[in-house]
Parts: sequence; structure tokens; C-alpha cells
Amino acid sequence: MQFISEQRLDDDSVVERAFTLGEIPGILWTSVSASEPAPLILLGHPGGLPMMYPRLVARARHAAAEGFATATIELPGSGDRPRSPAAEQARADLRRAVTAGEPVDDEIVDRLVLPLVDKAVPEWRAALDALLALPEIGGPVGYSGGVISIGVRLAVVEPRISAAVLFAGSFVPRAMFEEARQVTIPLHVLLQWDDEGNDRHMALDLFDAFGSEEKTLHANMGGHTGVPRFAGDEANRFFARHLR
Amino acid sequence: MQFISEQRLDDDSVVERAFTLGEIPGILWTSVSASEPAPLILLGHPGGLPMMYPRLVARARHAAAEGFATATIELPGSGDRPRSPAAEQARADLRRAVTAGEPVDDEIVDRLVLPLVDKAVPEWRAALDALLALPEIGGPVGYSGGVISIGVRLAVVEPRISAAVLFAGSFVPRAMFEEARQVTIPLHVLLQWDDEGNDRHMALDLFDAFGSEEKTLHANMGGHTGVPRFAGDEANRFFARHLR
Repeated sequence: MQFISEQRLDDDSVVERAFTLGEIPGILWTSVSASEPAPLILLGHPGGLPMMYPRLVARARHAAAEGFATATIELPGSGDRPRSPAAEQARADLRRAVTAGEPVDDEIVDRLVLPLVDKAVPEWRAALDALLALPEIGGPVGYSGGVISIGVRLAVVEPRISAAVLFAGSFVPRAMFEEARQVTIPLHVLLQWDDEGNDRHMALDLFDAFGSEEKTLHANMGGHTGVPRFAGDEANRFFARHLR
Repeated sequence: MQFISEQRLDDDSVVERAFTLGEIPGILWTSVSASEPAPLILLGHPGGLPMMYPRLVARARHAAAEGFATATIELPGSGDRPRSPAAEQARADLRRAVTAGEPVDDEIVDRLVLPLVDKAVPEWRAALDALLALPEIGGPVGYSGGVISIGVRLAVVEPRISAAVLFAGSFVPRAMFEEARQVTIPLHVLLQWDDEGNDRHMALDLFDAFGSEEKTLHANMGGHTGVPRFAGDEANRFFARHLR
């Protein structure tokens, strides 16, 4: 892990450091005022750090105010990373079906999401190794956001993740339902009820499948990108209950 | 409205007053430290004040700590009020179907709930007239709890109610879905995902039907009576956003 730039955010309370982990770009946000190693939240996203940056930095500041360090890495095939022709084709097929208002074939979702999960999850785990080696990062660790299938796989295979806020804003391969049953950590699932690019019934079925004893679903209005501010506050309080 | 008893609760911060409104028993809780007329939350429940008292007083204390006065009245046909043979029969029929694991006939739900809503809603409105005439009660007013169909009707017909926390823990007549579409106030709907005496899909359909621009669904585990403490905190924060 190599830090390549560092800046204070405008109110001077948060340090933002860009890094690379091998070929993978990433960003780490820590609070200037932290006096001891901080709990860490991994910020999931749909891919494309440059485009996602404004929303990620807002989440990072919000978390820093509650005492959490946050970090994210670019997804395989997104942002400045090399494209996968197969993933690009699957993404185009998905977009075409959604735009046409057609039901989305399981086969398209499988082609798009399963290879992404297989590639991304070991990268997030490697990032976690590197992040937890930093003196300013302690633990415990949470995962927050989408791609929900990446969060599910991480919750199953990565014992260092002790709670997760999962954003139900992407299509989920049928195979992930079996993994969902194996999840046992506390979950806080965010669903945008009127998400234009999601299948609500699939999201509700996935919530039902999770094996966790503590699982909470928060559904709100406002479309895919319209998660209300108070929903972010509630997600932070969930982490405050479980990561401190 | 006649006050018939008054007591300080054990930490001396809340005054509990029992009252009657004609033949209807009720309870009002106010904070001792309130220096100005308080916003009011009407506490809904499934009927039977003596049995419901422990849970109601816990909700009242929780709300008082946030600056809200709370009040409740007995439902028609429950607690010490005269029974309705038709309602008793409908309740027995519902219980038999649920216990047998059978689907519950719409006709049974209609027989149980529609007359209850028709009788209870004017009583809650009369209680509101009396409560708002007290110098210690200001407004705005919220409704919190079940019977969800009573909350829905109140949200439609009572303009003084400006936000509602609705507990989706009872069967809902089909006719209420049309009323749900007419609701426009901010809603915070609580659903116990594994509620043994409820129909989850009906609750989700009802949430979908609400016409409100701001509506939030919070689903948790723990069975009908197992609403987690943090879910109560979130409901209080919803009222803090809308009643202050």
C-alpha cells in the first residue's frame, strides 16, 4: 500500500489520503482529532471512484464526525482500471433490459455480478490487511454500501468484518441467496423503495434470507441516489452500536 | 374529560393522570419539567389498557424524555368497556384461522377491523379536542402505534395529526388500502419481520400504497412484541423531526 497524495478537507478535521494497493487505487479518510486507533468502515460503491467521489467523501465526513475511519478501493473493471469486455457486455445487456422495462434475465445478472464478486472480494480483503497494519486504524471493521453481493460475500468469508450496512440497490444473482443464509453478523439494510434500477421483491427476499439474528431493513423514498440524510444518521448509529 | 387520579412516576419526572372521557378511560403523561405547552403523541395500542399498561408507560417515559406529552384511550369493546358480541366472534374466528395456520379470510378481517375503526376514530378525535384544550398541551400532534387501520383513518380525516408512526402488527381490511392512498403526512412504519400474528406481504403492500411523499419502513426481528429499543429511539427521532 502506497500513499500517493494527502490533503486536509476544507474544515481541516479530516485527512484524505489517496493510495494504491498494487494496481488498485483507493482512498483513506481519518479524523485529525482521533487520539487512538479508530474503528474502520469500508465504503462500498458501484464502481468508478472519480464519479462516485462526491458521495463517498460525504459519507466519509459523516462517519469521521462519529469517530470512524473510512476507506474505499476501486472495483475491478471500473474507473481507471482495465475494462473487462465480458463485464461491459453484461452491463450493456442489463441496461438494455432495464431501459426497455423488461424483466432482467438471471443469466445477465450472473454474468455481471458473480465474476465481479469473485475478483473484488479478495481485493477488499487485501486492502483490509494493509489498512489494519496502519497505526491509526484499529478496529472493529464494518462494511457499508453496495455492491450488495460484495458485502454479502465479505460478511461470510471475512471474520474481521463485524457488522454491515448493505445498500440494496443492485441486482442479486440467485446464487447469493445461499450465501445470504450463512451471514450471521448484525445487518442494517437500506432499500430505496422506488429505486428505478433495482428489483424490490428481490431485495425483500434477500433480506428475508439473511441468517443474522439482528437484521434491520430501512426503506425510504427518493429513488436510487436519494437516500435521505436521516437514513445516513441511522446507519451511523447502527455502526456506533456495533463497532465501539 | 375528567381526571380521576394523578401520580408521579418513580423518578418523579413524569406525571401520569388517569381520566375518563364520557365512558372511555384514558391516561395522559406529561413531563414535570416542561416549561411550555408540549407537542402531543397519541399512543395507539391493540386494546386492553390494563394489560397494555407496562408497554404504554415505557413508551410514554421514552417520549417524555424527548419532550413529548403522550395520551391514550381505551378502544371500544376492550379493557373495562362493554364487549361487542360481533367483534368477539370476529376475534375468535381470526384467532382460530391464525392458530390453524390457515389464510385469514378478508371477510373476517373486515368484520373485526372496520367497525372498530368506525367507532374508535371519532373517540380519538374527541380525546384530541379535550387534550388540546389543556394548557400543558400545545401541538403539533402525532399518532404512534397500532391498530394500524385506526392510524390510517386518523391520518386521513384528522388534519391536526401531522406525522404518524404506524405499527404494522395487525390485519388490514382491503378497503383500508384505498384510504392509505389518501394519506399525505410523513409516515414512519414499523414492521416486525417475523411477527407471528401478521401478514408481512399485506404490510408491505400497505406501505407501498401510502400516498405520503416521506414514508419510511423499519423492519426488525424479534416477533410481535420484540420491537428493539433502538427502533423506539428512531421513532422518537422521526417525531422530533416532524413535531418540533
